[in-house]
Amino acid sequence: MAAFDTTEHSHRRYNPLTGEWILVSPHRSKRPWQGQQEEPEAETRPAYDPTCYLCPGNTRAGGIVNPSYDSTFVFDNDFAALQADVPTGTVSVGGLLRAEAESGVARVICFSPRHDLTLPEMEPAAIRRVVDVWVEQYQELGARADINYVQIFENKGFMMGCSNPHPHGQIWAQRTVPADPAKETVQQAAYFQEHGRSLLLDYLELELREQTRVVYQNEHFVTLVPFWAVWPFETLLLPRRHVTSIEQLTDAEKDSFAEALRDLTIRYDNLFQISFPYSAGIHQRPTDGQAHESWHLHMHFFPPLLRSASVRKFMVGYEMLANPQRDITPEWAAERLRGLPTVHYKQAAR
Amino acid sequence: MAAFDTTEHSHRRYNPLTGEWILVSPHRSKRPWQGQQEEPEAETRPAYDPTCYLCPGNTRAGGIVNPSYDSTFVFDNDFAALQADVPTGTVSVGGLLRAEAESGVARVICFSPRHDLTLPEMEPAAIRRVVDVWVEQYQELGARADINYVQIFENKGFMMGCSNPHPHGQIWAQRTVPADPAKETVQQAAYFQEHGRSLLLDYLELELREQTRVVYQNEHFVTLVPFWAVWPFETLLLPRRHVTSIEQLTDAEKDSFAEALRDLTIRYDNLFQISFPYSAGIHQRPTDGQAHESWHLHMHFFPPLLRSASVRKFMVGYEMLANPQRDITPEWAAERLRGLPTVHYKQAAR
Ligand SMILES: O=P(O)(O)O[C@H]1O[C@H](CO)[C@@H](O)[C@H](O)[C@H]1O
Ligand SMILES: O=P(O)(O)O[C@H]1O[C@H](CO)[C@@H](O)[C@H](O)[C@H]1O
Repeated sequence: MAAFDTTEHSHRRYNPLTGEWILVSPHRSKRPWQGQQEEPEAETRPAYDPTCYLCPGNTRAGGIVNPSYDSTFVFDNDFAALQADVPTGTVSVGGLLRAEAESGVARVICFSPRHDLTLPEMEPAAIRRVVDVWVEQYQELGARADINYVQIFENKGFMMGCSNPHPHGQIWAQRTVPADPAKETVQQAAYFQEHGRSLLLDYLELELREQTRVVYQNEHFVTLVPFWAVWPFETLLLPRRHVTSIEQLTDAEKDSFAEALRDLTIRYDNLFQISFPYSAGIHQRPTDGQAHESWHLHMHFFPPLLRSASVRKFMVGYEMLANPQRDITPEWAAERLRGLPTVHYKQAAR
Repeated sequence: MAAFDTTEHSHRRYNPLTGEWILVSPHRSKRPWQGQQEEPEAETRPAYDPTCYLCPGNTRAGGIVNPSYDSTFVFDNDFAALQADVPTGTVSVGGLLRAEAESGVARVICFSPRHDLTLPEMEPAAIRRVVDVWVEQYQELGARADINYVQIFENKGFMMGCSNPHPHGQIWAQRTVPADPAKETVQQAAYFQEHGRSLLLDYLELELREQTRVVYQNEHFVTLVPFWAVWPFETLLLPRRHVTSIEQLTDAEKDSFAEALRDLTIRYDNLFQISFPYSAGIHQRPTDGQAHESWHLHMHFFPPLLRSASVRKFMVGYEMLANPQRDITPEWAAERLRGLPTVHYKQAAR
């Protein structure tokens, strides 16, 4: 029998950040697709849309008017999933029906006044401004005694449940540490305790040696498809230096971060020549007052598209009930992303 | 300040089956929706479709011809995510790049020869036949030394990544126990060790006392919206007796199971008067040779629709990066499902 080959044979890969395994089925990418086809989104939008509740000067829910902002704009979500003024309280019936009040804040960050842009189409300085807002928000919210974790994220594209195409991200910040960052806290702490080093820094070193999953690198940041990627073109952005949170980045590192973001989102758009949908978010040190020296700042990109602009990966059935699963290998995905032009296709067409 | 109220205030609920929490935002169901609208699927299909690779007598991938089956039909998936003949092997680089070969079997179960039916439109006896096939498959695959877990599931509807509307489910059976059943194994075993009783049996008792989340009950089975439900109209089907796997059900219990399945899927279709999409699957004792006396057989239904046939819940952004979250309360969802007619809307329209 042939030797075990991760490009041919079904296998499991371990995610040291969460302690969980994923199932990889490299041979399966050839199956025909008769299922749902995604509708492409309209490619041209006006620079200003009078019906958009995120555009400057427009009126939002409840009659609030947006300022005429000219770079970024942050406000409290009008339909926040987390409420700040929740009375404390718990439910406990027989130890099996358990609930507790959860307080927090949900905010919206408009990335640009321009309704027709997205991150990859913005100027480097404007992306850098978004990074600065993330830092400011993390600092402001993290300093509050009632906020122990700050989740910064972006849903891009209707396919990812984004309800408005105006370029924007969100922040949900809350009293408890949510499930995924909590797992990463445990795993990173265990590794740090055992090796006295950052798990992700050691991981980055291995990746830089192997190069097969590295997509891009600049002075301070590296973009790679993690060995344990679940989504077809999932990526991880890592600072080369061990920092626990975004507020520790130097000016030069923030520039590098913005450049890496621009590079990645341009590659994504170029992959299928559409505005590429994804959910992305920053994982960093909980703001619970502990040092968390084992935490290593990073950003995840989870994009759903698999084979074309219209065929996505569905995380359903087996994946919802049993285990995450992927069809193409992370190495193959990284090779695709690495080979893409770094000029946005719309720009190139001009 | 008002007292903590789970129908008003953001809160977390604990899932004792997995040991994880979910975020509930009951006040958020009122937010407007300007995002993606789902396309309704064609409501009428022919009883036989010459282009369908699941219909009796038709040719599948690779030239294999389906028999002229007249009830159910099981075959090995032509594009199986798990391969039986994988050479064993592992990858381990610096303890952080870890992979291992995973072998298994993937099968397809056609529920009916009729291309135009779905479970809720099938006769009770035909649904009972599907239950019998699940038992047979669990027994046959579970008996194999190379199979330690058998995941039986169904993806229904294009929205749930189902690539063919012919009524069918799947089985993925493999060497290792996947993530979610593994968590349930740990949680149930811990509870059993502490209380000497089945976690889900004790839970069922509490639910039958409270009644607020119970949707339906017959002699041997109960359908409820779990206290910790994540998906808007998520449900859990539980046998009233402590059985670890489907093969332990008596004939009368299997009839009750089939009846409960029929009742639930009819309610689902009636909710928005469409063929209701979901992923559903059976969790039961791993087939690794251990007794697992703490395991309690159950079936999960995870349906994505939230507010109408065209507005779904997206598990994106915060949910992918931080924690599962829901907008409507499980109690409200149960009340909606309880109030629905138990005759299928298509039948009622005749
Ligand atoms: O096997 P199918 O129906 O082609 O594919 C569907 O179910 C599988 C198992 O849940 C998923 O991995 C796929 O993403 C989904 O599209
Ligand atoms: O807040 P939005 O953009 O209305 O909603 C979107 O993002 C949220 C946070 O990821 C999700 O809970 C919603 O399901 C999604 O539709």
